[in-house]
Amino acid sequence: MSDAMDDPLAPGNVARAGAFPAVFAEEIEKLFCRNWLCVGRETKLAKISDYFVVDVGEASVIVLRDRDGAVRAFHNLCRHRGTRLCEAREGRFAEAIRCPYHSWTYGLDGRLQGAPSTNDLAGFDRSEWPLLAVATGIWHGFVFVNLAADPAPVSKMLARLEDRVTTYDLGPLVSLRGQVYDVAANWKLIVENYSECYHCAPVHPALAKLSPPTSGENDFFEGPLLGGYMELSEGNESLTMTGRACGVPLGRVPKEEERRVYYYSLLPNLLLSLHPDYAMFHTLWPQSPGRTRITCDWLFHPDTLGRPDLNPGDGIDFWDLTNRQDWHICEQSQAGIASPFYRPGPYSHREALSMQFDREVLRQLGHPRHY
Amino acid sequence: MSDAMDDPLAPGNVARAGAFPAVFAEEIEKLFCRNWLCVGRETKLAKISDYFVVDVGEASVIVLRDRDGAVRAFHNLCRHRGTRLCEAREGRFAEAIRCPYHSWTYGLDGRLQGAPSTNDLAGFDRSEWPLLAVATGIWHGFVFVNLAADPAPVSKMLARLEDRVTTYDLGPLVSLRGQVYDVAANWKLIVENYSECYHCAPVHPALAKLSPPTSGENDFFEGPLLGGYMELSEGNESLTMTGRACGVPLGRVPKEEERRVYYYSLLPNLLLSLHPDYAMFHTLWPQSPGRTRITCDWLFHPDTLGRPDLNPGDGIDFWDLTNRQDWHICEQSQAGIASPFYRPGPYSHREALSMQFDREVLRQLGHPRHY
Amino acid sequence: MSDAMDDPLAPGNVARAGAFPAVFAEEIEKLFCRNWLCVGRETKLAKISDYFVVDVGEASVIVLRDRDGAVRAFHNLCRHRGTRLCEAREGRFAEAIRCPYHSWTYGLDGRLQGAPSTNDLAGFDRSEWPLLAVATGIWHGFVFVNLAADPAPVSKMLARLEDRVTTYDLGPLVSLRGQVYDVAANWKLIVENYSECYHCAPVHPALAKLSPPTSGENDFFEGPLLGGYMELSEGNESLTMTGRACGVPLGRVPKEEERRVYYYSLLPNLLLSLHPDYAMFHTLWPQSPGRTRITCDWLFHPDTLGRPDLNPGDGIDFWDLTNRQDWHICEQSQAGIASPFYRPGPYSHREALSMQFDREVLRQLGHPRHY
Repeated sequence: MSDAMDDPLAPGNVARAGAFPAVFAEEIEKLFCRNWLCVGRETKLAKISDYFVVDVGEASVIVLRDRDGAVRAFHNLCRHRGTRLCEAREGRFAEAIRCPYHSWTYGLDGRLQGAPSTNDLAGFDRSEWPLLAVATGIWHGFVFVNLAADPAPVSKMLARLEDRVTTYDLGPLVSLRGQVYDVAANWKLIVENYSECYHCAPVHPALAKLSPPTSGENDFFEGPLLGGYMELSEGNESLTMTGRACGVPLGRVPKEEERRVYYYSLLPNLLLSLHPDYAMFHTLWPQSPGRTRITCDWLFHPDTLGRPDLNPGDGIDFWDLTNRQDWHICEQSQAGIASPFYRPGPYSHREALSMQFDREVLRQLGHPRHY
Repeated sequence: MSDAMDDPLAPGNVARAGAFPAVFAEEIEKLFCRNWLCVGRETKLAKISDYFVVDVGEASVIVLRDRDGAVRAFHNLCRHRGTRLCEAREGRFAEAIRCPYHSWTYGLDGRLQGAPSTNDLAGFDRSEWPLLAVATGIWHGFVFVNLAADPAPVSKMLARLEDRVTTYDLGPLVSLRGQVYDVAANWKLIVENYSECYHCAPVHPALAKLSPPTSGENDFFEGPLLGGYMELSEGNESLTMTGRACGVPLGRVPKEEERRVYYYSLLPNLLLSLHPDYAMFHTLWPQSPGRTRITCDWLFHPDTLGRPDLNPGDGIDFWDLTNRQDWHICEQSQAGIASPFYRPGPYSHREALSMQFDREVLRQLGHPRHY
Repeated sequence: MSDAMDDPLAPGNVARAGAFPAVFAEEIEKLFCRNWLCVGRETKLAKISDYFVVDVGEASVIVLRDRDGAVRAFHNLCRHRGTRLCEAREGRFAEAIRCPYHSWTYGLDGRLQGAPSTNDLAGFDRSEWPLLAVATGIWHGFVFVNLAADPAPVSKMLARLEDRVTTYDLGPLVSLRGQVYDVAANWKLIVENYSECYHCAPVHPALAKLSPPTSGENDFFEGPLLGGYMELSEGNESLTMTGRACGVPLGRVPKEEERRVYYYSLLPNLLLSLHPDYAMFHTLWPQSPGRTRITCDWLFHPDTLGRPDLNPGDGIDFWDLTNRQDWHICEQSQAGIASPFYRPGPYSHREALSMQFDREVLRQLGHPRHY
């Protein structure tokens, strides 16, 4: 093991590597601009013409609902001189997408409909200047985008999760809380942290009490989709401040799964957590080598809202507290690995998924000998 | 056209190119340190020994009025150990220019007059250590500096404007308002914006009403000096909030020019706008690839001050509003072209001067095939 | 001289060279990570288990007092995944040093005592994963650390000062004031400033009155330890606001030294000033090419505290004022040399130590022809 640890590209060095601006740019290009990114729930686009904007590195993407009901995405820049089309983070288009600079106007399908004073422009053909399209995919109510040219469908990437998510019936769930965190740590430290419960006893005493840190098993051991479950301890129904359920049960969870919490990470930006009575997902948005914007949404079955005996805040508060504990320790990790004297140490067996995440990152960055 | 647009050095890419730190440094060196820069009106140096300081990239320049009445400029650094001589942005020298660190003292002509404890310094000759001089030029009341070693006179650069400016008699004008703007956009986007009125209808509804965006003609079609005029619409006397004149007429403007507004850009930092009753000029000071400091002055004939029926604020307010509309859309452009997915699009014929500006920038940066 | 001055690596260019990020990184690596750094007085670690943290570039170091009374230092990062062990800047350890992330636990001697869930880790031997040790040294009550692997003792580096410091009996002194300054200047400008009194008349009129700027002599003329003394003028007992002594006399200072103030710089981070009645030391901590964090402590003999007729604030106020004058002029120097038009000028003979400092910096950076 010590040999591998002295190697600057060994898995344990992955987090630190991202602290270098050049590596960060490479990660944005190869990981965030070529993989499916979760951008939220489809319910954010309730009506025709609704849109929201997400930023991927320095790129900006409009996600909208077209007149035919389809969710589409386009780069947030005019084909004329590159101006941002949408300044607001979300809203509803009137008739079309109009560039505020010179009024070039596009349909919700991206076609250039109007470009003033271009009739006399030799060789200019409007049909050749549509908005730059971005691939989209819907999966159980989640919206994904992919900035690559012609990606395989998102459902293929998530095929192995299909049964599990069907069981939990995530499609109809609604978000009862959306929270945004600004964390002073590299995005990979966040995923490494999510991928192990070796830190749960020191960092999350409440969580460790509700769910023994060494309980459970892993489902998916390598590749971009990793995860498994942990068990709830005797007498606890969910991960909440009180240990009691805070929502109506999700889907038709079989008896043997009733006391489990599933944790999945999909490289590069989705963390999905399934409890018996609610789901939670994080999306990660790297801002710089040492800074990550993180969203967290708590999803409940709509029937929960009609049940005064159930308190969704009990689960929301639990994870808001736990999230903040994680972000803080990740920030301490970030500060530590910034030292030029840092050398990676050995992962324990309880951190197997963190190590697999490191390997997958290296593989996608193109360092094949570490695959 | 599409071929040119795929070329990363094509004119349409000029704005984006400046977003890279290395290109920005090259622009400061080749454009801002080798061309004449307008630094304001000579009236800022009313008396002998008056000075002000301007920063060009990381260089700092003192502009002063010498005892013989001449305007001179020097690098704002002591020949001994480089310390800034002037900390204040403007003021009046007492007898001489004294470095605050070790009291090396210079005349207003730059000669080293005193350097304590250097008599015993072998080979040291005061006459060899004058302040580093910067070329200056006065043109119709405007002060210019040029950081190049031995530049041609500024009047030569502006010769083609001589007749126009003589007609408007800019020399005696006084600034009734100086405004500074901090804009989150590359400096070239500001010039491109100034160079076309294709954006006027969407961005400046009030301006478009006073002065039809497609009116007028261009005078100067290529090179560092570009521009032309637009016409005022029937019933309007000037560009003001009310459409009425706000100052006494400038110079002896001939009948056929009475309803015109002239717009000229001199690469790299001067924008000069001539109205029948007032002049306006902007100077541009790049702070970083995505940030520009812009000054704007409104110049009126002194007789305007004695005329209670004239309200200069009517023109000042008009352009302050219009300026802010421009800065905002330039900032949206800056955000858009920062995306790695941006590709330059086609200029319309109404943006001919913007394209010529791009070409001149490329030419001066030394990319001759785009000339 | 002019030849040398045109050379970008000539001594006079040393300050400016440090303004480039690449040179700054080289200075941190070659000067700050390979030399002894003063980190304060041993009295900061009064009891067993007391610790404080210092940052050297992006490295972080814990300095602590072990159970055996020894002062030790370790890199502030866990051998497991690099997390910072100490978040607080100072404090007292309970039993051991516990990493907050996964509870790896170390003794105050650095040995790894506990690492949960590693018993099943093939080839893992706790004894191979102690904290990364940093060399320490104590010298007359000052604590030093050295991040190099196996440095010669600090006493050897300071051997030439031994007699002087023994005379002043610095060991028992206590700090009556610690001040931290954040200065917008490269760290080398601070040392160059400290190394000459050519600037005293213009910058420090009060100091120049108490201690003639051309008085005294230099002791150490080249290498990492430089310095000498200046004399107090007739009627003044020390450098204080009043000119009167503000503490009991230090050690057994011989008659001929009673009216002297000694100034020593030890490259890269210590400035030590000895007055008849108090000592003062600065430590320098480069934050970026243009920013330095500086600590200043005023040390008095403990007997001073029982003497109501003596006012230590008289000396503290004097140097706080003088410090601020120096930081301000160094900031003006920093701004000036940032200009690409700056060229180094000639040092006067009164700046011999500043030039020697430049030479030593170049030597340690590995530019031997300037040695």
